[in-house]
Amino acid sequence: MSEFKSKIKTIEWVDNYSKMVDQTILPYEFKYVNITTGQQMYDAIKTMIVRGAPAIGVAGAHGVVLYAQEFAEKDLSREEFIKQLNEKADYIASSRPTAVNLMWAVKKQKEIINNSNSDIAGIVEELKQNGIKLENEDIEINKRIGDYGAEVVPKGATILTHCNAGALATVGYGTALGVVRSAFANDPTIQVFADETRPRQQGARITTLELTMDGIPTTLITDGMCSYFMKKGMIDMVVVGADRIAANGDAANKIGTYTVAIAAKYHNIPFYIAAPLSTIDTGIKTGDEIVIEERSREEVTHINGKIICAPEVNVINPGFDVTPHELITGIITEKGILRAPYETAIADAFKQCE
Amino acid sequence: MSEFKSKIKTIEWVDNYSKMVDQTILPYEFKYVNITTGQQMYDAIKTMIVRGAPAIGVAGAHGVVLYAQEFAEKDLSREEFIKQLNEKADYIASSRPTAVNLMWAVKKQKEIINNSNSDIAGIVEELKQNGIKLENEDIEINKRIGDYGAEVVPKGATILTHCNAGALATVGYGTALGVVRSAFANDPTIQVFADETRPRQQGARITTLELTMDGIPTTLITDGMCSYFMKKGMIDMVVVGADRIAANGDAANKIGTYTVAIAAKYHNIPFYIAAPLSTIDTGIKTGDEIVIEERSREEVTHINGKIICAPEVNVINPGFDVTPHELITGIITEKGILRAPYETAIADAFKQCE
Repeated sequence: MSEFKSKIKTIEWVDNYSKMVDQTILPYEFKYVNITTGQQMYDAIKTMIVRGAPAIGVAGAHGVVLYAQEFAEKDLSREEFIKQLNEKADYIASSRPTAVNLMWAVKKQKEIINNSNSDIAGIVEELKQNGIKLENEDIEINKRIGDYGAEVVPKGATILTHCNAGALATVGYGTALGVVRSAFANDPTIQVFADETRPRQQGARITTLELTMDGIPTTLITDGMCSYFMKKGMIDMVVVGADRIAANGDAANKIGTYTVAIAAKYHNIPFYIAAPLSTIDTGIKTGDEIVIEERSREEVTHINGKIICAPEVNVINPGFDVTPHELITGIITEKGILRAPYETAIADAFKQCE
Repeated sequence: MSEFKSKIKTIEWVDNYSKMVDQTILPYEFKYVNITTGQQMYDAIKTMIVRGAPAIGVAGAHGVVLYAQEFAEKDLSREEFIKQLNEKADYIASSRPTAVNLMWAVKKQKEIINNSNSDIAGIVEELKQNGIKLENEDIEINKRIGDYGAEVVPKGATILTHCNAGALATVGYGTALGVVRSAFANDPTIQVFADETRPRQQGARITTLELTMDGIPTTLITDGMCSYFMKKGMIDMVVVGADRIAANGDAANKIGTYTVAIAAKYHNIPFYIAAPLSTIDTGIKTGDEIVIEERSREEVTHINGKIICAPEVNVINPGFDVTPHELITGIITEKGILRAPYETAIADAFKQCE
């Protein structure tokens, strides 16, 4: 597996709390915050102190541990403990609607809560160990994704990415940027073009930061520029992450991804999704069933607290869009690169896991 | 012709100076500045106090008048006056490279400088009258563009536009937004979606301002969102301006336009360019010959003076892109809507003008 050393660990369980990079203040400060209660974790996910589908999966698992610790301090019966913890697990899972990894990780914790034979203290310990396990697995999965993805990166390629599917969207290493890191480890002539990714500018604020921290050459462009550089032959491939993938391969990712995918298709440039299997929701047939989070108007109308438009203008702010599977060249997972027909490829990948 | 009253006059010759809206401080202040010297006009165009292809055409014509007034004060021979004024006219024309209207308007002034039989005072007066004439013609041309364009706007349509080809990109009324104004005058159920248009946010800062000032319902979206709303069936047509159009119909416009055009094509949504014939450069065969202005890295890395990315990141900042004619449904001009094959349609439109 790739030996590339990234400097970043985004989220980590420490003793009895969860420690995470505060991503709302990037790139101005690189600061860790300690999340010590379940409610704090709910808020941290909702306000995007932690963001990125795989990272909020682990955050959700940690959140359940935090609630379990709190309830273990109360004088509850085992039955009441389990009932209340299930409710709070669902509450944590509701903090953001689009990324399925959050639901997936919370579901893993609920399986422990509801199937364990241990006493309350034992359940708390099992949840904690599982939270740490998911954390460690995430880095390992990302490295596998990176290594599979690196195989399709041409020598000296320029890779365009949108939003941040990097170390800071995961526990570490990254999915789309995991592909970049693994490719860069073998070929230091590759480089990245990073879409700014308005409204929240994760590409500008986070992707440029984590790639330059790791010494990977990176060019920042605004979201509308992608086609200009594609036409000039300056982009060799696109790799992005995903927040939820349907059984037919339709992939929800940060708003703007679909536009990049259309532009890539028009220029015959390969467009890859890089995501763990936990991002695939086989419970939904197509992307039409994916709930798209509507976020606040201020994300569009204000930047750094200052208004950028006529105050009375209307705003619609969908947080994600869905790229239909026909625009996707391949889905890079920890089990290899899935290719069309995706229904079969995805079903087969899940069979391997059973 | 449309009787729609817009509240905005962007640039106007007053006595012996040019008065213009300072567009660098929009939407925070709506303030006029008086440009009283040729050098001030060069700077005003370069720093985008005045912007928009038709507006900088008129600004260029005014700039030549300002230099003429200055030189008339000096003790120059008529020959020396003409020589120096020609040089300064070329200097004004060099302030921005992409929009052809600037070169076109300066060329009109140079024809007066070099063909007039008048004395120095007479030449100054002729230049001034021509500057005022171009100013008045611009509004009239825009209204004709608006009226032709309104004919292809479906009842109750939602029109997507990129950047600002509005009253504030022209002397008044606008080209793309002229189409909106003329359509709205007949059908108050139409509405506009305005792309933010990073890096300089003319869509957010200027388009939302001028449309809400005129009471036209406007929704601000970020540049990556266009495809999301197109797929949902919420966009009925796209209308944008242009900075230079080649003889084959390829059209340079603000960076990001090409991406919108590709998305429109993918969703079978009509994509129109609205521009006066003075934007068409029949001297170039295709868009490949259009010089694309490279602008400063700070436009991408900073917003409202604050950095938004890792400081050491690379940046490339093309100010414009070229939409190939095959993506353009029609070019709305003051002589009607030109349609493919554009070479013939453009040649015919210019024949009418002769």
